[in-house]
Amino acid sequence: MTDSVIDLNADLAEGYGRWALTDDEALLSVVTSANVACGFHAGDAATMRRVCEGAAERGVAVGAHVAYQDLAGFGRRDMRLPADELAAEVAYQIGALEVFARAAGTKVAYVKPHGALYNRVVHDEEQAEAVVRGIVLADPRLPVMCLPGSAVLRRAEQAGLDGVTEAFADRAYTEAGTLVPRGTPGAVITDPRKVVEQALALATQGRTTTLDGKPVTVRARSLCLHGDTPGAVELAQRVRTALETAGVRVEARR
Amino acid sequence: MTDSVIDLNADLAEGYGRWALTDDEALLSVVTSANVACGFHAGDAATMRRVCEGAAERGVAVGAHVAYQDLAGFGRRDMRLPADELAAEVAYQIGALEVFARAAGTKVAYVKPHGALYNRVVHDEEQAEAVVRGIVLADPRLPVMCLPGSAVLRRAEQAGLDGVTEAFADRAYTEAGTLVPRGTPGAVITDPRKVVEQALALATQGRTTTLDGKPVTVRARSLCLHGDTPGAVELAQRVRTALETAGVRVEARR
Amino acid sequence: MTDSVIDLNADLAEGYGRWALTDDEALLSVVTSANVACGFHAGDAATMRRVCEGAAERGVAVGAHVAYQDLAGFGRRDMRLPADELAAEVAYQIGALEVFARAAGTKVAYVKPHGALYNRVVHDEEQAEAVVRGIVLADPRLPVMCLPGSAVLRRAEQAGLDGVTEAFADRAYTEAGTLVPRGTPGAVITDPRKVVEQALALATQGRTTTLDGKPVTVRARSLCLHGDTPGAVELAQRVRTALETAGVRVEARR
Amino acid sequence: MTDSVIDLNADLAEGYGRWALTDDEALLSVVTSANVACGFHAGDAATMRRVCEGAAERGVAVGAHVAYQDLAGFGRRDMRLPADELAAEVAYQIGALEVFARAAGTKVAYVKPHGALYNRVVHDEEQAEAVVRGIVLADPRLPVMCLPGSAVLRRAEQAGLDGVTEAFADRAYTEAGTLVPRGTPGAVITDPRKVVEQALALATQGRTTTLDGKPVTVRARSLCLHGDTPGAVELAQRVRTALETAGVRVEARR
Repeated sequence: MTDSVIDLNADLAEGYGRWALTDDEALLSVVTSANVACGFHAGDAATMRRVCEGAAERGVAVGAHVAYQDLAGFGRRDMRLPADELAAEVAYQIGALEVFARAAGTKVAYVKPHGALYNRVVHDEEQAEAVVRGIVLADPRLPVMCLPGSAVLRRAEQAGLDGVTEAFADRAYTEAGTLVPRGTPGAVITDPRKVVEQALALATQGRTTTLDGKPVTVRARSLCLHGDTPGAVELAQRVRTALETAGVRVEARR
Repeated sequence: MTDSVIDLNADLAEGYGRWALTDDEALLSVVTSANVACGFHAGDAATMRRVCEGAAERGVAVGAHVAYQDLAGFGRRDMRLPADELAAEVAYQIGALEVFARAAGTKVAYVKPHGALYNRVVHDEEQAEAVVRGIVLADPRLPVMCLPGSAVLRRAEQAGLDGVTEAFADRAYTEAGTLVPRGTPGAVITDPRKVVEQALALATQGRTTTLDGKPVTVRARSLCLHGDTPGAVELAQRVRTALETAGVRVEARR
Repeated sequence: MTDSVIDLNADLAEGYGRWALTDDEALLSVVTSANVACGFHAGDAATMRRVCEGAAERGVAVGAHVAYQDLAGFGRRDMRLPADELAAEVAYQIGALEVFARAAGTKVAYVKPHGALYNRVVHDEEQAEAVVRGIVLADPRLPVMCLPGSAVLRRAEQAGLDGVTEAFADRAYTEAGTLVPRGTPGAVITDPRKVVEQALALATQGRTTTLDGKPVTVRARSLCLHGDTPGAVELAQRVRTALETAGVRVEARR
Repeated sequence: MTDSVIDLNADLAEGYGRWALTDDEALLSVVTSANVACGFHAGDAATMRRVCEGAAERGVAVGAHVAYQDLAGFGRRDMRLPADELAAEVAYQIGALEVFARAAGTKVAYVKPHGALYNRVVHDEEQAEAVVRGIVLADPRLPVMCLPGSAVLRRAEQAGLDGVTEAFADRAYTEAGTLVPRGTPGAVITDPRKVVEQALALATQGRTTTLDGKPVTVRARSLCLHGDTPGAVELAQRVRTALETAGVRVEARR
């Protein structure tokens, strides 16, 4: 048995108006933290509201999935903008979500950068600082979720914010504990058994195995599950069941 | 002398990114209530933040100037949309502004519909109800500002919200106490002396004179001043000075 | 046998960036006219390009599915805007599509208003006129597709434009030959057999039957098929097969 | 005397809906080439139409000022996006403008990237290639305007497109013939006399002087004038007058 605790997070509310993407209802019954799109890359107001209500009913933590202003590119277009504008845009998105979280009887519990912004604040000190300033503007008690060792977590710590480290059950790791870049063969783990296996190893031992079989330490408080591909929800459910069967407590302890 | 009290409100933050419209700094030194655009018809996040800071410094009340999602038409395109979507969009805008008000040490103090939405909720019961629901979602203590007798004020009252009636110093009134429709000759008062005169009459006596010289009662807690035309800020300043000289207390009492 | 000719049209390119809606490939193998979204309610540039290429390969006519500027509402939010702006926006959309049609070796062959704009130009003379002016700006040889008897077809005729009347295989008709309003029981025909039956009656006899069994004349050069609901593509294929089996020539003759 | 010929270009149509930026009428009487915003960073459809009409009346060449999809950042947010999407977005913008140019009795005569896209295609081979592909999609006869030696001009030449080199009357040059980066003291020339002097030197001798007084060769077929700062239009007029007085033919010869 284990006394491990792990949070499971996934991206929700990723539709926009007429367009749907994720099965928000199904995901809400699997995860313990919902990264809710806030209207800049996806997530219209009515969808944000509905997902907050669903999250509150199930005790799922609501996170602000903040992004570049980019509906056309779904927030995946890497962007440079003045730090003051980025900080204000981050705060804007958090505030908008807060209203729906509060109305549903819960609150925004954390902030996670989305897409190209996520990738950039792993290493870009200026944007990492801007994101942290945006969070402080909105609410200085909000933790930020990102990769262990990322610039944004370092900046968050310096600003007195809590950080939530996350790992990926379906991405291969290098010996250095970083993600194998997409595009490299084997970077994305597609075999469901292996995904479950890595989730278990990460949650119970804080480690996994590289592509060439070497052990690597990856400590994370949250596991990111994907919900936007066929079969993804089923796989996410399978991961959760395996974790619980192994005695891992699945919860968004913050 | 008089023991009258009047609030002066104007639209601010009506730029967007590279584009400016109103002289926010100058207006903030004239008005007691700032209707702040919330990003749907104007008002980027950085501008919203700056205006909230300026308002807080000067003790000017911050209002959420909520609008249809319409940058191309500046919120002046009359629109029909499902009530649930409108309610959620109103709440979204209030939440976004709240963050900047709070960070500046103040709070959102009221909600005023903008442009085509304003015109519609004067008479459209369904949209008036949706706007009120959006406000209740965001914060059921927020008063709503509109024309006396408007559907939205009636709905607000039924929902237990406070209403702030407003009148216009530069618009002619009919005998029924409603605005002479734009387009009608004389509908907009351009003579600065007459604007000041009507402001004084509205603030001190709760009445003014129609185009053909008949008296009409118009009770309002706030006077709307315009800031987006040449000379508008000077005229607004002149109105304020005239009111104060006449002993009217100019303040956002709510 | 019959010497009837009918055009089959459907809405395509209704995704936007990350979001897909219609199965464009499948629909292109069924219809003879593709109503291509032009970026205002849906239809990013890359999708417009791809659909134009697919249409050109299969000899499917490309139509500009022009709409209000409304991604959030998918062009279904009824809107009022100055006629000059609407005319220019219609022309803008046609021009954008023209580039992709031309690059694919074909051309924009007609214009069809979308969603709320479609519903409005059936009866709103000012907007109907604006749409026609927009088409004339872009290319005065372009026919416009809409309901028989609609304001926009009347205005188009007055301006010397050709009109393409359309009918619906899956909508019930009144005795007056107009559509039974959505919301009325029976307004949308869901029984596939009845849809096929009405398509055949419309194409071969220019008539169908009302909900209470009365005959009604509905003359149309094009039948609109829907592609955005489950099973829609299969039903569309079934309609086409039934028409061809009955000897109807299915083509976009203009 | 001289037999020199120079084109004068400036950015126009940079308003959006309610917001104005440039004095389009005044600029149209100074320049020979108008870089018309196409709706992605600025330039609503009605404004594009009006500027095309004004340009056609005065014999001013119409250029498509193509940009990233970024109203919030006015196209100044540096962006990375898939090459296929960028190419399609470039083509889309050209097509939209073409309609208004044609309706006004003229045509799109060239393409100039705007803002962050301009800066990027000076050196980014992938985006330069994507822009060229977008132009070829729209119309393979369209020349592209950019800095001498830029990646996009090289790619354009390889694709068989004409290039239009441009220089700046109000920017200091390095010995290598490149622009002194903004931010460096002296990078922007503000003394009107010096701006006129550099314009004359560039137009008549194809050379100017660096900040520390060294001669530098800068060959360009067009001079870019700015129109969005106070006094800019007057300065632009002064440049034109000085050029004509010196016998330079000011025209958009292509």
